[in-house]
Order: sequence, then structure tokens, then C-alpha cells
Amino acid sequence: MNAKSGTPKKNLMFFSGRAHPELAEEVAKHLNVSITPQSAYDFANGEIFVRFEESVRGCDAFVIQSHSEPINQWIMEQLLMVDALKRASAKRITVIMPFYPYARQDKKHKGREPISARLVADLFKTAGADRIMTVDLHTAQIQGFFDGPVDHLLAQTLLSRYVGETYGSDNVTVVSPDAGRTKLAEKWADDLGGVPIAFIHKTRDPLRPNDVVANRVVGEVRDRLCVVIDDMVDTGGTISKAVDQLLSEGARDVVVAATHGVLSGPAPQRLSECGAREVVFTNTLPIPDEKRIAKMTVLSIAPLLARAIQEVFEDGSVTSLFDGNA
Amino acid sequence: MNAKSGTPKKNLMFFSGRAHPELAEEVAKHLNVSITPQSAYDFANGEIFVRFEESVRGCDAFVIQSHSEPINQWIMEQLLMVDALKRASAKRITVIMPFYPYARQDKKHKGREPISARLVADLFKTAGADRIMTVDLHTAQIQGFFDGPVDHLLAQTLLSRYVGETYGSDNVTVVSPDAGRTKLAEKWADDLGGVPIAFIHKTRDPLRPNDVVANRVVGEVRDRLCVVIDDMVDTGGTISKAVDQLLSEGARDVVVAATHGVLSGPAPQRLSECGAREVVFTNTLPIPDEKRIAKMTVLSIAPLLARAIQEVFEDGSVTSLFDGNA
Amino acid sequence: MNAKSGTPKKNLMFFSGRAHPELAEEVAKHLNVSITPQSAYDFANGEIFVRFEESVRGCDAFVIQSHSEPINQWIMEQLLMVDALKRASAKRITVIMPFYPYARQDKKHKGREPISARLVADLFKTAGADRIMTVDLHTAQIQGFFDGPVDHLLAQTLLSRYVGETYGSDNVTVVSPDAGRTKLAEKWADDLGGVPIAFIHKTRDPLRPNDVVANRVVGEVRDRLCVVIDDMVDTGGTISKAVDQLLSEGARDVVVAATHGVLSGPAPQRLSECGAREVVFTNTLPIPDEKRIAKMTVLSIAPLLARAIQEVFEDGSVTSLFDGNA
Amino acid sequence: MNAKSGTPKKNLMFFSGRAHPELAEEVAKHLNVSITPQSAYDFANGEIFVRFEESVRGCDAFVIQSHSEPINQWIMEQLLMVDALKRASAKRITVIMPFYPYARQDKKHKGREPISARLVADLFKTAGADRIMTVDLHTAQIQGFFDGPVDHLLAQTLLSRYVGETYGSDNVTVVSPDAGRTKLAEKWADDLGGVPIAFIHKTRDPLRPNDVVANRVVGEVRDRLCVVIDDMVDTGGTISKAVDQLLSEGARDVVVAATHGVLSGPAPQRLSECGAREVVFTNTLPIPDEKRIAKMTVLSIAPLLARAIQEVFEDGSVTSLFDGNA
Amino acid sequence: MNAKSGTPKKNLMFFSGRAHPELAEEVAKHLNVSITPQSAYDFANGEIFVRFEESVRGCDAFVIQSHSEPINQWIMEQLLMVDALKRASAKRITVIMPFYPYARQDKKHKGREPISARLVADLFKTAGADRIMTVDLHTAQIQGFFDGPVDHLLAQTLLSRYVGETYGSDNVTVVSPDAGRTKLAEKWADDLGGVPIAFIHKTRDPLRPNDVVANRVVGEVRDRLCVVIDDMVDTGGTISKAVDQLLSEGARDVVVAATHGVLSGPAPQRLSECGAREVVFTNTLPIPDEKRIAKMTVLSIAPLLARAIQEVFEDGSVTSLFDGNA
Amino acid sequence: MNAKSGTPKKNLMFFSGRAHPELAEEVAKHLNVSITPQSAYDFANGEIFVRFEESVRGCDAFVIQSHSEPINQWIMEQLLMVDALKRASAKRITVIMPFYPYARQDKKHKGREPISARLVADLFKTAGADRIMTVDLHTAQIQGFFDGPVDHLLAQTLLSRYVGETYGSDNVTVVSPDAGRTKLAEKWADDLGGVPIAFIHKTRDPLRPNDVVANRVVGEVRDRLCVVIDDMVDTGGTISKAVDQLLSEGARDVVVAATHGVLSGPAPQRLSECGAREVVFTNTLPIPDEKRIAKMTVLSIAPLLARAIQEVFEDGSVTSLFDGNA
Repeated sequence: MNAKSGTPKKNLMFFSGRAHPELAEEVAKHLNVSITPQSAYDFANGEIFVRFEESVRGCDAFVIQSHSEPINQWIMEQLLMVDALKRASAKRITVIMPFYPYARQDKKHKGREPISARLVADLFKTAGADRIMTVDLHTAQIQGFFDGPVDHLLAQTLLSRYVGETYGSDNVTVVSPDAGRTKLAEKWADDLGGVPIAFIHKTRDPLRPNDVVANRVVGEVRDRLCVVIDDMVDTGGTISKAVDQLLSEGARDVVVAATHGVLSGPAPQRLSECGAREVVFTNTLPIPDEKRIAKMTVLSIAPLLARAIQEVFEDGSVTSLFDGNA
Repeated sequence: MNAKSGTPKKNLMFFSGRAHPELAEEVAKHLNVSITPQSAYDFANGEIFVRFEESVRGCDAFVIQSHSEPINQWIMEQLLMVDALKRASAKRITVIMPFYPYARQDKKHKGREPISARLVADLFKTAGADRIMTVDLHTAQIQGFFDGPVDHLLAQTLLSRYVGETYGSDNVTVVSPDAGRTKLAEKWADDLGGVPIAFIHKTRDPLRPNDVVANRVVGEVRDRLCVVIDDMVDTGGTISKAVDQLLSEGARDVVVAATHGVLSGPAPQRLSECGAREVVFTNTLPIPDEKRIAKMTVLSIAPLLARAIQEVFEDGSVTSLFDGNA
Repeated sequence: MNAKSGTPKKNLMFFSGRAHPELAEEVAKHLNVSITPQSAYDFANGEIFVRFEESVRGCDAFVIQSHSEPINQWIMEQLLMVDALKRASAKRITVIMPFYPYARQDKKHKGREPISARLVADLFKTAGADRIMTVDLHTAQIQGFFDGPVDHLLAQTLLSRYVGETYGSDNVTVVSPDAGRTKLAEKWADDLGGVPIAFIHKTRDPLRPNDVVANRVVGEVRDRLCVVIDDMVDTGGTISKAVDQLLSEGARDVVVAATHGVLSGPAPQRLSECGAREVVFTNTLPIPDEKRIAKMTVLSIAPLLARAIQEVFEDGSVTSLFDGNA
Repeated sequence: MNAKSGTPKKNLMFFSGRAHPELAEEVAKHLNVSITPQSAYDFANGEIFVRFEESVRGCDAFVIQSHSEPINQWIMEQLLMVDALKRASAKRITVIMPFYPYARQDKKHKGREPISARLVADLFKTAGADRIMTVDLHTAQIQGFFDGPVDHLLAQTLLSRYVGETYGSDNVTVVSPDAGRTKLAEKWADDLGGVPIAFIHKTRDPLRPNDVVANRVVGEVRDRLCVVIDDMVDTGGTISKAVDQLLSEGARDVVVAATHGVLSGPAPQRLSECGAREVVFTNTLPIPDEKRIAKMTVLSIAPLLARAIQEVFEDGSVTSLFDGNA
Repeated sequence: MNAKSGTPKKNLMFFSGRAHPELAEEVAKHLNVSITPQSAYDFANGEIFVRFEESVRGCDAFVIQSHSEPINQWIMEQLLMVDALKRASAKRITVIMPFYPYARQDKKHKGREPISARLVADLFKTAGADRIMTVDLHTAQIQGFFDGPVDHLLAQTLLSRYVGETYGSDNVTVVSPDAGRTKLAEKWADDLGGVPIAFIHKTRDPLRPNDVVANRVVGEVRDRLCVVIDDMVDTGGTISKAVDQLLSEGARDVVVAATHGVLSGPAPQRLSECGAREVVFTNTLPIPDEKRIAKMTVLSIAPLLARAIQEVFEDGSVTSLFDGNA
Repeated sequence: MNAKSGTPKKNLMFFSGRAHPELAEEVAKHLNVSITPQSAYDFANGEIFVRFEESVRGCDAFVIQSHSEPINQWIMEQLLMVDALKRASAKRITVIMPFYPYARQDKKHKGREPISARLVADLFKTAGADRIMTVDLHTAQIQGFFDGPVDHLLAQTLLSRYVGETYGSDNVTVVSPDAGRTKLAEKWADDLGGVPIAFIHKTRDPLRPNDVVANRVVGEVRDRLCVVIDDMVDTGGTISKAVDQLLSEGARDVVVAATHGVLSGPAPQRLSECGAREVVFTNTLPIPDEKRIAKMTVLSIAPLLARAIQEVFEDGSVTSLFDGNA
């Protein structure tokens, strides 16, 4: 015979950066695989070294990293992992970024700025990523920044189901903390059964465009349970002010819900001190104990990630996980 | 001497597809250049032929096309013009699309859809475009779909200045016709001096997510002059319903303003029959006489395009045309 | 275990644009598959929308479109389908273009023209096409415009076998309607058993190079059955003049055979009125009833396409379908 | 000042590989420049080394190589020169290939062949070539193999003018040596004032497709001066047989004209011994003394190359050198 | 006139990341330009924001960053600056990395590692870098990792001239601290007038390949002034051990010289405590006061960088700065 | 059913260029496959033609070529084979280059040189190579020149095991013939059980940098068995001088070992005449009978290549063949 034949196999291998090992472990457990052993450490000058301890040749690689602080280090680590997988002959490389880094810089707000979210997509493409999996993008257009398949998972349903089950939908108003998230509020309102929405309008003086003159609540909030929603909470300033304004305008109670708990600097204290009854996040980003305040609920994204990975590996349907909406 | 020296020159040449010759002529006049003569016609089976009648070697080429219907034909024509310029040694090619085609398909709304706006960017890159100039993108993120410089011109200022001068800002409310344009409404409100905003909330039944159960106006509109804004008006359905709902909820008067007058099919009739006092567009797209209704005002975008082309050619600043905001 | 193993499957899925549903259905039937259900429609301003109704993840996708008029629309539709497949994780995408669009613009005839056929190849590559399947290219060099595998199917054999069986080869002369198709005529002559060939020489006056001074038949045609061949018949002008000139120079009878029945505008009438006894095409392009004249024979290309798809899917040999000649 | 300004200069620099120094020198003389000094030699194992002896930073580089035997060595040398120019910051690199190598393999003649002419274009693109200049391509479609500007110079006019001046056009028939060059013959016939054309039809037996059964002259040649034309003459077999067949069928006299005198192996002897009165070539390829037979005329392509280089450097028009036909 | 002409200008603009402002200022002063004003800061979660405060359209941009710790942050910042410049229409972008990050990972030492130095080159190419300027690469092959011009400046001459002037060359031995730098030692020995060299051989037991069994000095060091050289000193472990071993084997005195003072963690203390008489670095990396020990000499690389930038901007010769050796 | 399912197969097919058929045959035998039949010949003007005689659709192709003289021809042949495989739908293409051509030009030694080894990597990538397999690269950094997996096999172990078994390690010194190979000598020393190393220091006069003033042996060689090692021996000049110098400085005996026997021109004679007791090579390159001298031993690389191909085909581990060191 001229040729030598065989039947190909496919192997799911799961890899994790060092940013959020708990989430990776949880996903691995749901998938019933181990995280592939690797060496990963920083040299004295901060350069990162990675090496996989097992052969990855021909595998279907899934590489998870949660882009918390120090965020540029974790980006670089994941890029290096992808490069190593490419050069070690992985068959397909899916980059999993539960929180897409630099998502807020998805356009030039003014001239001479980078479009950092596009740059991130290009960097991973260059390193060798075939596909991206991510959760609740800041704007859905970021999908189009990557030249290849993007599995955009929706955690919002997870959050809205929890809120609905906990608080019902009677007398609920969904509130967007600014004009840019009103569309998201509308989706929440649909999830909760067609409740009203409101948002907070930041008025600027055209002569001093950088100063917010006043915040106006647009929509009905008096005597209602306000669910303030967002894709992420970073320093918590906007959200905590929104909570307090809603209460001062007569809201009966306020609940905060967001997918990504970035929770930088003063965020835990601000959330703790504001008048919200409960704040709900997922664990797309690590929330260490010192940031966990009493009224915080953290829902796990791990089962969703594991199911999506499974579908991708088996050529099933990720869209079907979201009733055709993703 | 081993080498032969010379001083380079740069030549601005201006090219126009066949979709909207009036706009091209107007821009050329402002630039004080002629449109480069070309042959451009359709073969019997619809294939397009183009040839430039003058040498374009080394030129700084600006190629304008207004993407009206038949939109796919005009895309293909502009691609062919870019290819011809590339192969004829143009030095730099700037594609001018006053209305960016397929901008509404800037993400997958559900699974298994294209991201057509990204595809358009890639097609022009492939054909040979170095830069894109466009006006009031449906979403600003589309800038990030092109791997190169995008000059994103803002015509909204042109519109808001006209509305402000015509109607003042007393008693004005800016209204977004749906939740997705609330951010744009906020910008308008700032332009008009810090006026209030409102939007129309489309409520869906979670059991029948494709049906809108009710439209609710969120925000104050009674006895006010409502300025309904959008980036484009296509069939006019959403806009004309919004106008009538605002009037039925007590608005004193309604004005409609949008950058791109797509005005497909029933749009002229709907706009004519709805209760709006005036509808204002720019001429980024051709608006033929049969679509021009009595209460329509069309502002010319040509001076803005010409100034931007001039800045690009002379390495000036396009950002400065917009007070640093673009 | 660290890794999770499985045996990969491969799935042939067949997709069709809206240009020529009859051919797609016929191919599907030969393949014993269904065309994958999709939504595909035009928005009011001509923008096309497509969505596949079933998961395509991991499939071996074959996407057929017949590039008839409106040809630019059908090109754009097929590009959007490819983009959607790429982003939905199809494993491999084969673009089937029975008639390669813009094939006649395969070079610059004069300066400052596009090379449209190369552009078409690049556009599909950019959208995500891995492979192209096409039939009887205007020039075989177009294969080299695509950076990847091109399966170039030969329908000429189908035509020559039909002509041979219908008319025998006694007294036959194969005639090229112009100097550029003489090589094709030679292949036909071989297929028909070594019959003579002739062609029509268009003489130009060097002082007026755009005017044809005279058409001269070069080769023996008197008292012979002339088979006038070409790759395509568009407006039918060249062909019908050739037929009449051959008859006026004493040809006993004339038969016309070409792969692609573009048949624009006056073509049906011209073919009908010229002295040809029979005109033979394949159905690479749709030939609607109003273009079907009495003496027209249309051979189906569907079995050939289906066999080629099957070979590609099963890693068989397409070359073997043509006795090693493709 | 923040920035430091200057006026750019442009510098034409001319580089030559080692294949055909005479042509390079002649072009340089017409351009009034020197060939840039370089080290270029072969290591003991055949690896080529090149280094330029002067700074090339920012120059407009024109790199000529005549692709004679050993053709693969000269391709590699030119690729290395382009790489060195790219890495040494040349501003623009134009590759001049008077004879485009591997032009005959411009398609797959059968399955599982390379498309070598496309590969050559891609290799030069990869090395860093911005533009290609070449003469009388085997097929004009090769222009489309390169993703960038190709200046396709026509030497045929040079040849036809010489033949016309030497022999007049009375009683002339232009003859293509096979069916594939009939189109070229038609162009010659136009150049010579509308003279008749003929070609030689190679008949094959369909049962033995590799054997030519008979050569038939199609067209009038008796008592005429036959000008046998081609783009290149390699081993001279086809051409010398054509000459003798034409004479045996009554041609009064035969002249051979082709752009590229490849003249491999037996070609000089065959041309010498065949009945042609004169054979005319250009010097796109070196024709050493031992290949120069008595009846051979070699016209210089150098003035044409020099004028084209000059036009490219000065952003003039190459098309205008050919009355708009290139 | 159809076209509008002008004379192009070129503008050098100089940009600096935040890692080593002193070096940037010094280079700017030598160039007689200002550093272009920019906003650059970290968001609360570590994401970096940059915006240039002046128009950069059409400029010849030089972007310096010294890749000290936190090295991944500075890489990302420089990538974002390049992206912003590309999108703001800079004409040409030269990335200046006095210390090339991740240079030590220039190959896979074992299987399944990244080649980080290649990845870095690719990341900058993707972001939009046209050229790279760097100093004393860990291995010269890294030049080949970038697909474009790399100006590789040599600071070794600066160091060797200083050492030669300070210590003369009598009785000097140049010592490589390990077998891999022997070639560099040879170059130093040439610079110092043909002095002897030595190196330290690390012997491993083949049964325990990770353990160094013994260090052997190979070459003559007794009673000699040993100049221990390297491209960089990171934690100082290897170097300080080498110094002490040389002294224990009878060296009269030891001087350490290296281009890049990485000086991580214990390095200052180790250098201080080892027996070297003087340690010499350049300022390619910032060496803050707390790392500056008594016997340390720091030579400035700024004049060399400024001259090289000037040559690049003016299309002069960088090679000539190094007597043809770079 | 909409889709048609199947189970994919994988087929190893092995292809060989014409440079070193003996090695290809030997590898094929170890793999238990036949070399795929092909036509490969040179046209009269040196252009190479290749065609595969069997379908290669979907195969896992391994293409071997040994880059001996005429090296540029063999590079071009392998590129053409890769192009043909890509266009014939091979699934994956691994280029096997036991001796990587142009490896010595892996950097610019001076300005305005190519980086030929990077160019070679890019040429193969462009032609369609997915992966490279090679043996004992001149510098390991060349792995980073290819944007994809490189299987870098180590033949040094083969050589050192042979030398160790033949000569033991008592009294052995490993000698690098110049400063640049000292690191390689160190690896050999480890393989042989921790023996000493030495190298030859070429001293240059800084005023005449191209002249070697003196060769000094650095390290202990008197009364020892010197094993002079290198990656390749080309003309044999350096090596034979090293041998004789070592003997003149008292070495007891000298053995030469190198992976690649380039053996150009005078090499056989020089090796024969120098005082080495034995010279050991592998057969990565063909060593024809006329170059085989009496004291030469040639070890076969074929078993190693065959095992590596097998591992690649079966998604095993190539790293494991070298105890994790490759």
C-alpha cells in the first residue's frame, strides 16, 4: 500500500492560566476532565514562562483565563499559552475569556485613541487562536472584532432568573444606570415578564461638556422595587450613586445585578455603604474574600461554560443553550 | 551618480461611483477638483465594467459611493474601482461611504448569522482600500471592523444645530424611538443645551418574545416639542408610529431628524401621513424628487466631506473639525 | 484522565442561495440530502439577510449559487452565507459557482481596469471560503486566482458527447466564433474523433483599431456540419453572426453548443432567428421558460456536480471523473 | 516645536542579478544611472549570498533579473535581493522580470499539478515585492496572479514593426504554430494592416489522446510570406516543424518572430536547419554567442524597459507607452 | 484641473511610554524635538488608556518604551500606542525597544514552550508597527522574527571603548560567564585589541541533567584583569558567582560589563557584595537610585538612539554608525 | 436527513523530491509505506514540472527533500510539490528538510543582507506548508522563523552515543572549532559524562577586522582525545585546520563529528589529509561514493525521521523521542 491509514481521534484538553484557578477547577469538574498540568511562573523581571507537561499534539484545546488585575499580565500569559499550543501542534485552540478585557475601549471616544478591544482580538488571532468563547460582552459588536467564530454566552438569563425567583416581578422596575444600557434594561424587563424600565439621564452643559450638571431619573420608580442592571461593576461609583438617587426619589427597595464583578478599589465599600438590599454577580472574575460583602450573592458561571465547551467539542449547538438567542 | 533623485509630489484625485452623482459633484466643487473621468457601465448580464480615462499612478485617491438601492451593485462597483486603482498604482486609496452599508447587521442577533458590517470592511480591505471615511455609523464600534484608519464624521451636529436654530430649546424633549438609541438622544439633549429625554419602551411577553405587547413612552412628553431622532429612517414604520404615539400622549408638536434618509418603499407616504411637523435628513443618500415630501428638509453633507478630504490630503486634523470629539 | 476523547464525525451539509433553486434541488436529490433550511430575504433597502435554521457546527459545507442576473446581489448573498458559516464554526466551506462570475474580466484589456475575476476569488477567500468548485472556466488560468484548491469540472464532455451522439462526426467541422476560442475548438475536435476545425478571423484596420473591418472564415466549412462552440453565450450577437456567416459560406448545417447560457437581453430572439438547427446549453445558469426557444436543448449539470461533491466529501478523486484531465 | 519637519526626496536605485548583466547595463545607460554595487556570489554548496555596498534606505528600488538557465538559481537570487532590500528599508520594490519564469505552468493541465506561475508571484510578494514589471506574458491572466500592480510591457509591437518594415505586408499570412496562439496571431495581423492568419491544427485520436495524429494547416499559406509568431521559442521543435510544413504546403517564404528566445538545447541547430529565412527575437533573455545563428536578429528591449521604469518612478503613465493598450 | 497637487512634507514625531521617561527625555533633547503630549493612565482594573493630544496624521512616528518591570504592562501600553497611531493615520511607525522583551525565550528549550520573542515581534506587527529599533539583542537571530526592517544598534562598542579607556588592554582576559556567550567574548576581545578569552564551563551529570556538578574556568585568568561580559544582568547570580570564581582562581581583578541592567530582586546586593571592582551598564532600562550601588557606572545610550532615529528619518544610513557592521 | 454523515479517515502519504532518493526510500521502508509515485522532471530551460500520479485528496502529506547542491533547484522543487499538494486538497502538509537550507544566513552579519533562513520559512508557508520537520538546526532560533509547528529533531545524540561507545569518555575533551559552537560542545560534554571542553579562539586585529591574526586553543587538549564537533562540515577548511592545530598542541588523537556532511569541493580531500582518526556524519545529505573517504563513518538518520513522522501522524509525542528535550 502506498498510504498508511488510520482513524482520527479527537481529544478535549483543558488549560488554565493562573488568574482564577477556582473557576477553572469548577469548569473542569463539570467537564469531567483534569486541567492539563503546566509550569507557569514569572521570571525575576516579570517575563512569564509557560510549558505544558504533557503532549498536546492534535488536541482540541480550551484555554481559560479570567482577566482580572493585573490584567495585562494575564493577557500576556494567555497569549503565550496559545503560542505554545500552536507550536506544539494543537489541532484547534479556543480561547475562553469569561470577561473580555478592554471591552469598554470598543471604539474611539475621541480622536487618536486605540480601539483596544479590536487589538485584543487581533493579538489572540496572531498568537494562534482559532476561536473565542466569552460571556456578556460590553457591546455585542465586539464579536465582529474577531475574524473567526465567537461563542458569546449569555449570563444575563442566569441573573434575571435568580432575581425573578427571589423577588417576583410585581412592582419591579428595571433601571439602567445610564443611557447606554437602556437596551440591556429592556431585555431584563422582557425576562421578568414585561415590567417597566427607567434610566438615569446625565445632563451636560454644552459649554462645559465634561461636567455632569444633573442626574435625572427618567421613568417610574416611586414605591417600586428597582433592579439596577449593568454588564459590569468596576469602581462602583455610578452604581452606588444610582442606588441612592433611586431611593431618594421614592424607590421602595433596590437590587443591583451585573455579570462581571470587577470590583476595583473602593467598589466593595461603596456597594456596602449604598442602600442596595442585595448585589448579585457571577464569578466570571475572581472575587476574593476581602471583596465579598454581606449582601453580595455570587452565581457560578461554571456550569454554563462547561456545557458550552462540551457542545463545541462535540459539534453540538451552543445557540440551543440560549433558546436560539445567541 | 548611482541613484537618480527627485522631489515627490502628491496628487489628490477624486472618483465617484454611479450611485449618487449629485453629491459627488457637490463635494468636487467644494474641493475645487473635477471627478476623474471613467467608463463605468453594466454588461448585459449585470457584470460591471470600470476603467479610468486618465493615469492615476501615484495619486492620493478618494472614491465616493452612496450606498442606496441597488445596494449590492454599488458595493461591487466601488470594490472594482478600488481594485482598478490598486492595480494602476494609486498611492493611497480612501473609500468614502457616507452611509455605511449593512451597518445594522453589526453583530449576530441570533446564532448562524453573518456579521455583514465586518464583512464589508474586510471586502474593501481585500480590494485594496487603505482608509475609510464615513458618516454617523449605526454603532461607533464599526470603526473597529476595519484594520486601518477610519475617519468617522459626525453629521449629528449639523442636524442639531439646524433644529436648535429653528425651534429653540424651550420645552423640547429629545425622544429615542426605541431603547437602543437612548445614548444618541442623550448626545442630542446635550447639544440642545441640556434638555430632557424620553424613549419608547417596547414590552414583550416572555412567552411570545417576537411580539411587542405594548409601547410605553418613558419620560416626559406632554405639552412639549418632541424631537424624535435616529441615525437612519428606512421604511419609516417605527418613526411614524413613535410620532403618533407621542402626539396621542399629549406632545405639543413633533420633529423628526435623522442623518441617513434611506426612505425605502412606504417611507415617504408614512412620513407624509404621520403627524410630524418637519422631517430633517442629510443627503448622505440620494433622495430623488419622488421621495421628497412637503415637510422634508435635506441638509447637505458635502461641505463636511470636502473639508475632511482636504484635511486628510494635507495631513491636517479631522478630529479638529469636531472640536476633538471624532 | 486529563483529556476527554471522542471519535470525530463528518457531516456533509448542502446550502443554496436564491438564484437557481431548481439546480440546487436537483443536486441535493442526486446527493440524497436536503438543502439546509435558511432564512434569506432582502431588507427594504436591498441589504440581504441570511440565517441558517439548523446548527452547522463542524459540518463540511457546500454552498451553491448560480451567478445569473442580478449577479452582484447573488455574489453578495453567497459571501454573506460563507461569512455566516465561518462564524458558526463550519469546519470546511466549499463555494460552488457553476458559472464563475466576472470570468471575462480575467485580465486588464487596457490600463486602469480591475481584474475582476481575481477580485472575486479574493472576496470569497476573505469571507471564509476554503475551496471553490466551478465548471468550464472562461480561461483555465482563473484557477490560479484562488489561493487554495479549485475543483474545475468539465462540462464540455457532456456537450460533445451529446453532439456526437446526435449528429455523428462525419463531415463535421468544429468552429470557434473568434480567434480566442480556437484552443477550445481543438479539444472539441479531439472529442469528436479528430475532425477539422475552423475559426472566424475578425480583421481590424490598424488606423481604426476598434472597428472590425471584415470577418473571414479560416478553415473548411463548405458542405459541412458546423458545430460552433463557446464557453458561454451572453447576448448572442457574436454567435448568431457566426452562424449566418457559416451558412452564407456554404455550411450544410450549424449547431451551437456552449456550457453557460447567460442569454441576456436579445439572446433568445437572436438564437431563434439565426439559422442554427439546434442550440445546446447546460443548466449552470437558470434558463427561465421565457428564454427557452424551440430549438434549444438544455443538459443537466446536476449529476456531475453531485458526483464531484461526493468525491470531495469522501476524499475521493475528482480528477478521476474526467479521466485524469482535470 | 514638537515635530521635526523635512521635505522628502525620492531616489531611483537600480539593481541587477547576475543572470544577464548586458541587458541590465544597457537599461542603466538609458536611465542614466549606475547599477548599485553589490556582493553576490555562491557559497560552496550553492547557497547564494548578496549584500548591497551602499545604503538603500528609502530608495525606489528596481531589481532586474533575466530568468534564463539555471532558472531556479536566478529566481532565488532575486528573492534574496528583494528580502535584503525590504530589511534595509527600501521604500518601494519593483521586481523586473523581462521573461516571467514558469509562465507556461499557469494552470493545472491535469490534476495534482502546481500552478507554478501563481507560486512565483506569491513568492515575490512574500519576499517583499511591491510591484512587478514584465514583458509579453505567456498569458495575460498571469497579471492577476500578483496581488498588486503589474506593468505588463508589450514587445510584440517592436517585433511587428520590424517585420513590417523589413518585409512589407503584401502577401503576408501570420501563422500561429498551434491553436493556442491564434489570438496572438490576430493581433499581429492587425499590426501588419489586416493581413490573413492561419494556424496549425494538431489532430489527436480520442483513443490515444497523447499522440498527435496529424498536423493540418488551417488557412491560406500557398505562395505567401508566412510570419510564424509565438511568445517564446524554447527547444524550437514546434516552430521548426511548423516552418517546414508551411514550406511543404507551398509557402513562398517563412519568417519566425518571438519575444523570448529561450533557445534551450537543440534550438539553435533546429532553427538554423529549418527553412526559415529569418528568426527574430528580443533580448529579454541572454542569447550568448554560441546560440547566435546567422539568420537571427535580436532587437533590444532595453529602451522600452528604461522608459517604463522612468514613468513608474515619476508617476507618469506606462499605459501611454502603448497607446492605451497596456 | 482634475487633480489637486501638493508637495508632501515629512514630520518626525516622538512618543514615549511611561516606563522610562528619563531616557525618552534625553533622546528627545538630542533630537531637538519634544515628546508628543499624551494622556496615558491605568483604569482601576489595570486596563491602560492612551490618547495623543495633537494630530499625528501623516507623521513619521517613533515610539520608545523601555521594557522594565512590570514588563507585560509596558508591552501592552506600547501596543496600544501603536494601534492608536495606526488608526490616527500616522504614516510610518517605528517601535523602539532598547531592551527587547522576552528575548531569552527565543527558542523552545524543551517541547511545548512558546517562542515568546517571535510572539512579541508578531504582536507589534499586528498592532501596526512598520519597523523596529532595538539594542544588543540577546541573539541576533531575533532580527529575523520581525517581517520588516529591524535597526539593530550595537551598544557593545560603547561599553568596550569605556573599558578599554579605563583599564587598557594589558593583561586583560575577556570572560564569558557561560558557554553561550563565548562568541560575544570573542567580539570584545577583538575590540580590545586581540586579547585572550576564557569562559566558564558548567558540567552536568548526564544522569541528573538539571544539576550543575561543577563550574570550570576554561582559559587563562591567573594574574589577569578579567572583564566578564554579557548582554544583560538579571538577578546577578551567574555573574557574581563567575566573579568570585575568577578571583578564587587567581584573577588580579574583575570588571563586569553588560548592556542591559535588568537588575531584578537581589541583583544590586549580589553585585555589591561580589568581588568585582566595577560594574558597567547602559541605561537601556531604568536603573532607579535604590539599585545604584557604589561601583556601578551607567553609560547613556541616548546619543546613539538619537543618531539612529535621525538617520532613519532622513533616509541616511544606520549601518554607517557602526562602520558597516550593523 | 438534512446532512450526510461519515467517519473521517486519515491517510499518511509520503512524498520525495529528487535530491536524495536513498534516504527517502529508507525512511519509507521504516514507515512501511511506499513513496507516492510522481512525475518530476526539468524542462529544457530548467523549469521543474511535478505531478502526483495518485489522488492525494485529504491525505496527511509528508514531503522530504535533502537540500544538497544544486540547492536552489531542490528548494524550488519542494515548493512546487507543496503547491501541488495544497491545490490537490491535501489535508495537512509537513515539509521535511533534514538539512535546513540557508541556515547559516540566519541574521544580518552586516547591513543590507537578507535573512535567508527566515525567507526560506516564509516561502514554504506561502506555498502551503503547515509544518516543518528538520534536524539539528544551525541555530535553534530558526524554529521561530516559521509561523507554525516545527519538529526539531536532534541527531547529536546519535553521534555522541556512537562516539561514546567507540572511544569511551576517558581523557576526552570536546572541542568547538570556533567560539560560536562552544554551547554545542557543552552539550556534547554532558552527553559524554561531564568531560572537559575547549575551543579555538580566532584573534583579529581591530585595525584589520577581516584578518585572523592567530588561532589560540583555549582549554586543555594535551594528551587527550579531542572530539571536534560541529553542526555541519562544508568545505572542511575550519575543521581540518582545527584538527591539525590540536595535534600540534599535543592532542593524542582527534575525531570529527558533525550532523550534516555538506562536503563541498575540497572537503573530502581536506578531511582525508588532515590528521583526524575518524570523521562521523549522518546521512541528512547525500554523500555520494566519490566523497566517501576511508575514515568516514555515516550514521543513518532514517529511523529517527520515520519515528518522528509516525508520532506526528498519530498525534503522539515527538518530544518524548528526546527525553523531553526537543
